[in-house]
Amino acid sequence: MLNRVRSAVAHLVSSGGAPPPRPKSPDLSNAPSAQPAVPPEAPRSPPARAGSGSSAPAKTVEARASFSRPTFLQLSPGGLRRADDHAGRAVQSPPDTGRRLPWSTGYAEVINAGKSRHNEDQACCEVVYVEGRRSVSGVPREPSRGQGLCFYYWGLFDGHAGGGAAEMASRLLHRHIREQLKDLVEILQDPSPPPLCLPSTPGATGSSDPSHLVGPQSCWSSQKEVTHESLVVGAIENAFQFMDEQMARERRGHQVEGGCCALVVVYLLGKVYVANAGDSRAIIVRNGEIIPMSREFTPETERQRLQLLGFLKPELLGGEFTHLEFPRRIQPKELGQRMLYRDQNMTGWAYKKIELEDLRFPLVCGEGKKARVMATIGVTRGLGDHNLKVCSSTLPIKPFLSCFPEVRVYDLTQYEHCPDDVLVLGTDGLWDVTSDCEVAATVDRVLSAYEPNDPSRYTALAQALVLGARGTPRDRGWRLPNNKLGSGDDISVFVIPLGGPGSYS
Amino acid sequence: MLNRVRSAVAHLVSSGGAPPPRPKSPDLSNAPSAQPAVPPEAPRSPPARAGSGSSAPAKTVEARASFSRPTFLQLSPGGLRRADDHAGRAVQSPPDTGRRLPWSTGYAEVINAGKSRHNEDQACCEVVYVEGRRSVSGVPREPSRGQGLCFYYWGLFDGHAGGGAAEMASRLLHRHIREQLKDLVEILQDPSPPPLCLPSTPGATGSSDPSHLVGPQSCWSSQKEVTHESLVVGAIENAFQFMDEQMARERRGHQVEGGCCALVVVYLLGKVYVANAGDSRAIIVRNGEIIPMSREFTPETERQRLQLLGFLKPELLGGEFTHLEFPRRIQPKELGQRMLYRDQNMTGWAYKKIELEDLRFPLVCGEGKKARVMATIGVTRGLGDHNLKVCSSTLPIKPFLSCFPEVRVYDLTQYEHCPDDVLVLGTDGLWDVTSDCEVAATVDRVLSAYEPNDPSRYTALAQALVLGARGTPRDRGWRLPNNKLGSGDDISVFVIPLGGPGSYS
Repeated sequence: MLNRVRSAVAHLVSSGGAPPPRPKSPDLSNAPSAQPAVPPEAPRSPPARAGSGSSAPAKTVEARASFSRPTFLQLSPGGLRRADDHAGRAVQSPPDTGRRLPWSTGYAEVINAGKSRHNEDQACCEVVYVEGRRSVSGVPREPSRGQGLCFYYWGLFDGHAGGGAAEMASRLLHRHIREQLKDLVEILQDPSPPPLCLPSTPGATGSSDPSHLVGPQSCWSSQKEVTHESLVVGAIENAFQFMDEQMARERRGHQVEGGCCALVVVYLLGKVYVANAGDSRAIIVRNGEIIPMSREFTPETERQRLQLLGFLKPELLGGEFTHLEFPRRIQPKELGQRMLYRDQNMTGWAYKKIELEDLRFPLVCGEGKKARVMATIGVTRGLGDHNLKVCSSTLPIKPFLSCFPEVRVYDLTQYEHCPDDVLVLGTDGLWDVTSDCEVAATVDRVLSAYEPNDPSRYTALAQALVLGARGTPRDRGWRLPNNKLGSGDDISVFVIPLGGPGSYS
Repeated sequence: MLNRVRSAVAHLVSSGGAPPPRPKSPDLSNAPSAQPAVPPEAPRSPPARAGSGSSAPAKTVEARASFSRPTFLQLSPGGLRRADDHAGRAVQSPPDTGRRLPWSTGYAEVINAGKSRHNEDQACCEVVYVEGRRSVSGVPREPSRGQGLCFYYWGLFDGHAGGGAAEMASRLLHRHIREQLKDLVEILQDPSPPPLCLPSTPGATGSSDPSHLVGPQSCWSSQKEVTHESLVVGAIENAFQFMDEQMARERRGHQVEGGCCALVVVYLLGKVYVANAGDSRAIIVRNGEIIPMSREFTPETERQRLQLLGFLKPELLGGEFTHLEFPRRIQPKELGQRMLYRDQNMTGWAYKKIELEDLRFPLVCGEGKKARVMATIGVTRGLGDHNLKVCSSTLPIKPFLSCFPEVRVYDLTQYEHCPDDVLVLGTDGLWDVTSDCEVAATVDRVLSAYEPNDPSRYTALAQALVLGARGTPRDRGWRLPNNKLGSGDDISVFVIPLGGPGSYS
């Protein structure tokens, strides 16, 4: 997340004095927004195949606030120093010896060229076991039915204005997802449609019987069908919100610095759920074809949402910003002239007479990688950023940021995948200099150089993608073979095989 | 627009007493939302090729409030009665003799099966001449440059809760578009990029020079490029808003009843602009391929926008509605149990404990054609509806409706079109019972039965599409060949040829 938060670090000093927001009730059954207690330091360990992230010894607050890399990299103190070296920018991958990541997932990363003190990307790869909370439907459990569920989990977290939020999300977000899924363990394993209503206490009578409907309105005489899939999507969406709320509660005590984009993959019961909040990207490369699995959330792609919020809640603009967009900065002497603009309803442009309040700074300005909300931040979804303020102001930016991901679903069972079919996740360090097509070409080139059953081929591919985006040091910069500048940002890549040696039945 | 407004007519009685909203200033140069004066009864006539809509003799308010059909149908009083006959449901098209519609456009319509007193669809087809308002750039006009612009225009308006809004929009919306384009006549004919800023008075110094930039911020050091195309899009978007504002001003004096969906096509300088607000649909069928040119705006497709508005402005819900969605009606006795829900941020579902305010009626409910906002209206964009209230309540629904269209652009010059390539516009009466593929099949079947240079083939195609959606009377209903029910709604179809005899250079 290079250059995406303008001088924001200086404004991240805690405002002090005021007590932190009161945590929401830990009783999940009370309300949809109730925060399940996710103990940061007392996790339930995932089963044996899990990566080592959550089973690592508890770190102190001080250690966590300093530099850390994903535990599955198994870095020694010397290795950690090399990974932190902006000059060498050595590509890091899990060691070729010992336990592989689930599904023989490939991973590689490299630190930025000096734009931030440490690598602000973080990553997580886990197998997570979900134990049912209780017999939620009120019906006693059948002994034949499985007692719990397993999901596979991959997460990339691209931090900005400090590494705290990304580090915290990489440790905890999958546990929030587990918490959300606990109520669904039985329901997801039952082939019948999910109950629309559950009793408040186990054993009470369920009321999902449509005959209970009272006075149905003509527009609403039936009930909607809700799929198992949409329950998982809802669980992931709410997990992101709970993660964000936890950051808000703990931002002082645990020094949660800055914010982060989050790109997360959950594999559960035959389906791949890709949840994205920010400007990382996921694509599937299947038989050479590219299937986009995410879209980016930036001031440009979310302009109308931001403008609508500024229009409906002008107090959020603090008298400093206008919700209108202009194609360039207006000068005071242009008052009364007519300038192109667009508002929250428009995709086209029109002329308007310049009035005094149009001289305020636009809520959304700039283009491409330089687009900003409130002249400060270049991504509009993610976790954290609770302390982020407008430069030289006390105006908070968080109200304009959304912590909710867009979740896309891919059914793994609908297609016979071969060992060369992969899901590629990358932070913007990869995608800033690499197109989807170039990634697909690298997939083809690297994987065809390895035997289909060689489990190291996906790590080799992740390394090739990171190297291809980083380039080599030449002419006072990191340059690609075509002599263009490589990415000076942190770069992190997962390559998840969708068929072949993973054998993830 | 059958069945889409539940008992809304009963609530359309003017509230009386209060004065109508003050009209906005008619001086366009004052503000972007300033309303240009579009005289309803003193139009500037389009040139000779134009349809007869706007050059028809001025009708009295009384006549307009009663039944009327598009003037290009040239209906005699007897023909008007036949067109108004719910029992016969005769398909209407322009007469085969006399002047054809521009581009040999085909048109056909049929009245509903009795669900409203008259046909609440309206249509318009015009060639509109736009005279430049003045030398907007301050530079004297070159005599060699054209003095004005011509655009071709087609509009379908699907009324609900009365025919007034659709009738008014069919008479006036293209004139609002013309008003918006007046300032752009010179700019659109100048191949250089549009000026970002115009002087307030003609002849004053322009200030589009980027060197005028004051203290550029790092995120905003450059100016955005604005295309000619995006100016036309902006003009159409604002024209919809001005049309809607005019309806608000005149709704008492002129008895503007109900509201309408609007689907509009503008052809200007080689490009086709398709603007849609509502649930009509436009597709291009090109060499058998289907290119969607619009999407529908309904409570289901706009659920999250509606919920967000209800969440941010709870006063709009009047204590009667909840912004949360539930898959069925909650009963009071279910208080405390846990029900599936989703809010403005979610696409998935999750369980929440039912609280007292969840017993309110959901802002959005129902599925498919039965989906409703506030239990009342089934479309979420369009013109009019200023008096629409929730059934048995004084709560206004208009704040949740948007008058803004989505505009898609199709460049006619990028492809060599053959005489069988057409743009098909239809109200929901067509699309409720006809898929895109079925329309494409009918395009192929009908057009191949006519010579490519036979200008009547597009009318024959429009008639075939309307007949295919209406069906024939059988077994106490209008039935399709597969014995399913045909559409009992008003059905209106334009078929616009994109190549061939139109010769629209």
